[in-house]
Amino acid sequence: MIDAKHIEALKTFVGNENVYHDKAHMIAYSYDATRERYEPDAVVFPRDEADVSAILRYCNEHRISIVPRGAGSGFTGGALPAKGGIVLALEKHMNKILEIDMDNMVAVVQPGVINMDLQKAVEAKGLFYPPDPASQEYSTIGGNVSENAGGMRAAKYGITKDYVMAIRAVRPGGDIIRAGKKTIKDVAGYNIAGILIASEGTLAVITEITLKLIAKPKLKKTAMGIFPSVERAMEAVYKTMASGVTPVAMEFLDNLTIRAVEEKFHKGLPTEAGAILITDVDGNLPEEIDYQMEVIERVFMENGCMEFKKARNEEESADLWFARRNASQSITIYGSKKINEDITVPRSVLPELLRRIDDVALRYKVKVPCFGHTGDGNVHTNVMVDGSDPKQLEIGHKAIEEIFRITVELGGTLSGEHGIGLSKAPFMHLAFTEEEMNLFRDIKRAFDPNNILNPGKMAL
Amino acid sequence: MIDAKHIEALKTFVGNENVYHDKAHMIAYSYDATRERYEPDAVVFPRDEADVSAILRYCNEHRISIVPRGAGSGFTGGALPAKGGIVLALEKHMNKILEIDMDNMVAVVQPGVINMDLQKAVEAKGLFYPPDPASQEYSTIGGNVSENAGGMRAAKYGITKDYVMAIRAVRPGGDIIRAGKKTIKDVAGYNIAGILIASEGTLAVITEITLKLIAKPKLKKTAMGIFPSVERAMEAVYKTMASGVTPVAMEFLDNLTIRAVEEKFHKGLPTEAGAILITDVDGNLPEEIDYQMEVIERVFMENGCMEFKKARNEEESADLWFARRNASQSITIYGSKKINEDITVPRSVLPELLRRIDDVALRYKVKVPCFGHTGDGNVHTNVMVDGSDPKQLEIGHKAIEEIFRITVELGGTLSGEHGIGLSKAPFMHLAFTEEEMNLFRDIKRAFDPNNILNPGKMAL
Repeated sequence: MIDAKHIEALKTFVGNENVYHDKAHMIAYSYDATRERYEPDAVVFPRDEADVSAILRYCNEHRISIVPRGAGSGFTGGALPAKGGIVLALEKHMNKILEIDMDNMVAVVQPGVINMDLQKAVEAKGLFYPPDPASQEYSTIGGNVSENAGGMRAAKYGITKDYVMAIRAVRPGGDIIRAGKKTIKDVAGYNIAGILIASEGTLAVITEITLKLIAKPKLKKTAMGIFPSVERAMEAVYKTMASGVTPVAMEFLDNLTIRAVEEKFHKGLPTEAGAILITDVDGNLPEEIDYQMEVIERVFMENGCMEFKKARNEEESADLWFARRNASQSITIYGSKKINEDITVPRSVLPELLRRIDDVALRYKVKVPCFGHTGDGNVHTNVMVDGSDPKQLEIGHKAIEEIFRITVELGGTLSGEHGIGLSKAPFMHLAFTEEEMNLFRDIKRAFDPNNILNPGKMAL
Repeated sequence: MIDAKHIEALKTFVGNENVYHDKAHMIAYSYDATRERYEPDAVVFPRDEADVSAILRYCNEHRISIVPRGAGSGFTGGALPAKGGIVLALEKHMNKILEIDMDNMVAVVQPGVINMDLQKAVEAKGLFYPPDPASQEYSTIGGNVSENAGGMRAAKYGITKDYVMAIRAVRPGGDIIRAGKKTIKDVAGYNIAGILIASEGTLAVITEITLKLIAKPKLKKTAMGIFPSVERAMEAVYKTMASGVTPVAMEFLDNLTIRAVEEKFHKGLPTEAGAILITDVDGNLPEEIDYQMEVIERVFMENGCMEFKKARNEEESADLWFARRNASQSITIYGSKKINEDITVPRSVLPELLRRIDDVALRYKVKVPCFGHTGDGNVHTNVMVDGSDPKQLEIGHKAIEEIFRITVELGGTLSGEHGIGLSKAPFMHLAFTEEEMNLFRDIKRAFDPNNILNPGKMAL
């Protein structure tokens, strides 16, 4: 796809030192968190928007595929060059926080800025950028926007899209587009920023992002509720959310997950419990914190909670969070291969969803530990199998497909925050009609008529 | 454009009683709040989504223009059939609240539901739908979504788009599209709901909307600050918003507006004041209310506030709000014709914006009273002229164009909440490059290749 002439052309745009096509670099840029591998034909490091524009114009003319990449920490292969071509690596040069505007409570960043670096920079000024995907220590804002990343705080503070005010991006032909403003209200023209969010780099390459910031709440408190069954815990979740208080986080672990963490870390967790809920509330006044905790405790108790533990300090809070933070790594005791999905349903059907996942696990004879962000209906569902056994793998994938079907039947979505990418592309037909897929194709064609941007993603 | 054969075809879809083409109805559906007039060739009242689909399929085949219409209360001609064709009137049959889902805090409505009817229905259940455009007593949710309506509470609670979780819509060819879910997180497929919001009925006809609801705060309190100058008031606005507390509303009136209301209603308003700010805070606890009021009072006082009045009860609150609520009708004392725009800038440049509007008013020798939603940078700018004097009208329009230029120069937008429609279409080139307009055209073509949906709007 790419020959020496193309490599030379790319070097004239960005300089020799910013184009690689040696084997070592091709391997280094061939993977993401899915552990699948696709080697690109070249890796290019644009220095600025003008570079991105020049590269896209050239690649569009020569029909060369371009895959934008941040940290490569995605769970669905969004940054993998499935059809070869160029990986456009934005983390090397385009990683500056351009502005933290205190007066308007806005940050302007390049796509390669790491989420946690932004959080720290704004918190140093008393401001707050809430979206906190589990990958926050290494994932980039560009990647977060492209997948519309969620996180623990979404129940109260929403997700990445709720903070994107404006985007600058480059279309395949090289045109630079400014979408949105540093204003809360803006209804002039189509909502281009809105459609670029979660578009997985298939429509344009994002070169600058303007993010809304909020004031950092002064106080926070953690509590944990222990429940006899998943059903009762799930009822407590949606009834809490409907009570009028909105906790920052409302995370859950099922019995399999609790037992896995306990087996690995011996923390004295309640291994007989059906489920644990861990919740954070925040605010500026002690009275607000107390009020929210009282309401949550009451709703939990009304829904079968056996024990309600409130952290008295930061240390106790970290203790309560320990099980949740170590859930993902602990469940590997159930199988060497984890087929993990991030299905999301309306909160009120969480009890039914978990019941039916349990039923799938029984029928397929696989363990399916679940945990996650139940405050917004987002459940991390992990089908654990022996990765060296092809039969087990097949069973695992069948179980996952059935869980997807159940999710869609319950009014839920294939992905709450990880995206579609390559991993979930085969399941898009479960969630969308042919007419809906046609609309996606029409939009893709409108932005990228030659299909050079991240081809093959999202079943397009 | 439409002949007897077309009328007969439409009647077979929706029944004789739901198709009008008599003069009286054509006049009744020829206007909106702009007072401009364009008569359609027919008015059709679809009974349901299947009707909308049949009508669109037929009109697409026969290249007949379709203009979706809610209450016709828009300020920019969005619902006017500028190129003739059919007005698709959604307020008659498709006006049901389909569901208020207490467990998931979601409402599902048809597009013709009136904003205030929805607010009342959800408040009766202890829930809250915050977007409150000034037209809330008659404008429809479908119209609100199509223009992305704002309102008084946007500073704290955001605008219509922040509450849209899912949309069902029909494409010109008749295809029915479901976009979004009853879930906070959903990243499967492109954000179709996102791009339909504010698209002014140019991409698809919305047939059902799923809206996020929140818990209704229990307490509210109002205060007013009197300032020596607009500049000091504007500084107080953005410094309050950056202080960490977020008032529900932060409304402003300039001296011309204050004097107009006083002249009309004799309420004892401070006619020597440069500006008034009126603010509401809300919460669930008295301590929260007091804390917010203390911070606002402090910031106001630090920025030259001459008097800070706190309402002690509902009656005093209504008193403080009186001037703002009657601003729009009062300023007509300055001229029979009001050329009003809803420009929006980043809050920190509000002082400069108002200074420069003042300068425009002096140079063109017109009065330009301003008031509005300064908490989100949205200023209602009213160039007042004698409507019977063509010369005055011309001057007025030149002044407005200059104000648009200043707004864009300051990083602002042509429209915060009214939309582009017909009225602002001539100014789109001030805000967007040709490349950006081309992207809008590409998107329009992707959704509506035959350009039958609301043609001529948004400069498309």
